[in-house]
Amino acid sequence: MTLNLNEEAAEMHRRLHGKITVCTKMPLDDEHDLSLAYTPGVAEPCRRIHEHRELVYEYTARGNLVAIVSDGTAVLGLGDIGPEAALPVMEGKAVLFKQLAGVDAFPICVGSKDVDKIVQTVKMLEPTFGGVNLEDIAAPACFEIERRLKQELSIPVFHDDQHGTAVVTAAGLLNALQVVGKEVAALRVVISGCGAAAMAVADLLLQLGVRDLVLCDSKGTVYSGRPGLNPYKEEMARRTNPRSIRGGLGEAMQGADVFIGLSRPGLVTAEMVESMAPGAVVFALANPVPEIMPEEAKAAGAAVVATGRSDFPNQINNVLAFPGIFRGALDVRATDINGAMKVAAARAIASLVSPAELNAGYIIPKPFDPRVAPAVAAAVAEAAMETGVARLLVDPAEVARHTRELTAGRGVAALRAS
Amino acid sequence: MTLNLNEEAAEMHRRLHGKITVCTKMPLDDEHDLSLAYTPGVAEPCRRIHEHRELVYEYTARGNLVAIVSDGTAVLGLGDIGPEAALPVMEGKAVLFKQLAGVDAFPICVGSKDVDKIVQTVKMLEPTFGGVNLEDIAAPACFEIERRLKQELSIPVFHDDQHGTAVVTAAGLLNALQVVGKEVAALRVVISGCGAAAMAVADLLLQLGVRDLVLCDSKGTVYSGRPGLNPYKEEMARRTNPRSIRGGLGEAMQGADVFIGLSRPGLVTAEMVESMAPGAVVFALANPVPEIMPEEAKAAGAAVVATGRSDFPNQINNVLAFPGIFRGALDVRATDINGAMKVAAARAIASLVSPAELNAGYIIPKPFDPRVAPAVAAAVAEAAMETGVARLLVDPAEVARHTRELTAGRGVAALRAS
Repeated sequence: MTLNLNEEAAEMHRRLHGKITVCTKMPLDDEHDLSLAYTPGVAEPCRRIHEHRELVYEYTARGNLVAIVSDGTAVLGLGDIGPEAALPVMEGKAVLFKQLAGVDAFPICVGSKDVDKIVQTVKMLEPTFGGVNLEDIAAPACFEIERRLKQELSIPVFHDDQHGTAVVTAAGLLNALQVVGKEVAALRVVISGCGAAAMAVADLLLQLGVRDLVLCDSKGTVYSGRPGLNPYKEEMARRTNPRSIRGGLGEAMQGADVFIGLSRPGLVTAEMVESMAPGAVVFALANPVPEIMPEEAKAAGAAVVATGRSDFPNQINNVLAFPGIFRGALDVRATDINGAMKVAAARAIASLVSPAELNAGYIIPKPFDPRVAPAVAAAVAEAAMETGVARLLVDPAEVARHTRELTAGRGVAALRAS
Repeated sequence: MTLNLNEEAAEMHRRLHGKITVCTKMPLDDEHDLSLAYTPGVAEPCRRIHEHRELVYEYTARGNLVAIVSDGTAVLGLGDIGPEAALPVMEGKAVLFKQLAGVDAFPICVGSKDVDKIVQTVKMLEPTFGGVNLEDIAAPACFEIERRLKQELSIPVFHDDQHGTAVVTAAGLLNALQVVGKEVAALRVVISGCGAAAMAVADLLLQLGVRDLVLCDSKGTVYSGRPGLNPYKEEMARRTNPRSIRGGLGEAMQGADVFIGLSRPGLVTAEMVESMAPGAVVFALANPVPEIMPEEAKAAGAAVVATGRSDFPNQINNVLAFPGIFRGALDVRATDINGAMKVAAARAIASLVSPAELNAGYIIPKPFDPRVAPAVAAAVAEAAMETGVARLLVDPAEVARHTRELTAGRGVAALRAS
């Protein structure tokens, strides 16, 4: 009897009692080993770290350790299911971190949705971890949590639902523009959605030089002075919609070059796509059901279509970004993951599609292309050093080599090498 | 060139970058594996846990996961060295948890000494962990932290420096009494020290039926009404020193049957031991230099002597207790580690020395006797079920079998089987 995928996944989780375990990196074969690992020998690394705190990165696992922090309020498409129910996702994320970039990542699902309490907790955990990956925290709480943590911690903090999505979307877009022969500065871009990912995509595209960008939420376009905007949308209103378009998604999409959907299934009609400029780029990223199905978008004139799904061409998948971004940040002991590092990651991902390979059906590497994490890690490390947030200086080629070494022969990454 | 132990320990920690790593429990060999571990399959265990929160123990690693929480204020003999410098010890503890009882333990070194902040942080971590081992937190903060966490969390909380020491000391004492032919109820016991461990030893001995117990700190004996006692000593003063002995350690030890030192090197003189009752038991547990050296104590008439050191007979070592205690508590999903469970652990450890083997030089099993963790786990599980703090009912023999299975062939434990 074959089980369906859901039953099989539940059965696998039950049988293994989850997907991660804590392993020891050393043998413990005799009392001498023990005297090195524990008392009395362990006192020596303790003393040295006490004298020079930075040595914690030499003598402990901290430098390779990322906390995957969630309050379980925005898990997959399931919504606010609570911290316990979020654990399987965070364990899955830890598996990907390890397999794709050799990062030791550990789930920290917290028992409150209160912003202050979450910020305080992560601050308390700072001495233990080398970085913080925020995950599946609902907007707008996620914005304030990330902003405060970035300000108050000296280790890198990265909300993957925001910036992972933004980096991979930007990578795909850069290549899509090559396909349709358009420049960033002249683009008209519409983003459907005003959640965490949408806001971050907007922010990164502005950084990349997009000048005409319109955000749409369920009440229509976002513009300065629209009543009832929260502070995050208010700020985005000031930076976007230069032509002050009012109305719904239909109005916003007329004449647009690029549509990016991070919203809800089926929101986009064929007519909306038909109203776009020639050479339209449609990224319909709602998951699992996109804003418009690829075949329908193409029939309506879209030149390039991407989705979040693995069963269509051009999958926009965060897995392309977060492992390499943290690998690069950790390898140069970065204090932040800043805009330049995200741009560098996007360009590194885009660059892996060679001009000869590039076409409307292949604008972005496959999620498990083993070249991705090393390239992203190297680019991110270099950008960290250039922008002065790296505490170590390392040859980017060395970072790439380290990434390959850590992931050599690992699972899917190895398979995809073929 | 041979390095000394300190250099060698530092070099090993540096070479490995610490002692623990996060491992995956499943293969990730193809996209099917990925769809089970992560989206879309992972949504199913998430949904099921959301419906029945207790299923988090079935579908995730939580049920085998212990947080080793420290603020770095009382690390080994090094004192308040801070959370970063405490990490090597916590990683070492994680290695012992794994090797000796198959427990996944993860260091959480927190960035504040503030009791409220530590309590709040650990409460926030509750959804992620199956238990909390407090470690190397200075007194008296450790008492309040433990008290509040035990009250507010529904997972077991155990301060090893207190209760691990108490359990192993009690185990040794039970067997020492067999050697000298004395009964618990008639004993006169003196404890030197009023730190975390001393208070917990006193508490456990009272539970075991000791009636005449005197605590001594640097100002002398603790008695009701002594000026300047903190609330913890105050409470202990009410429960101890029934003969209201005043004076110093010398006065307290006159005629005593048992001395337990958890204080400072060299505090006990030969004369003090000579003043004890015939068949005196001396546990001089200050580390690495005991309150009195074993040979001196014996020469002064002590019938049984124990220390914390591996190079003398009768080592009182926490390693005998904490792995099995957590194994047993986790296996029956206990909500607490209560007094009955600690007493059960002490009796289980003591019982592993058979009447035929028992003598003044062998009152307690060796730290890596592979029989210890299974026996402790089974006894603790049984006591948890008997006292109503177990959420699962499991045959204690099954707990012992599970413990053996998890640790079969592991490092020191396996070696010590010979």
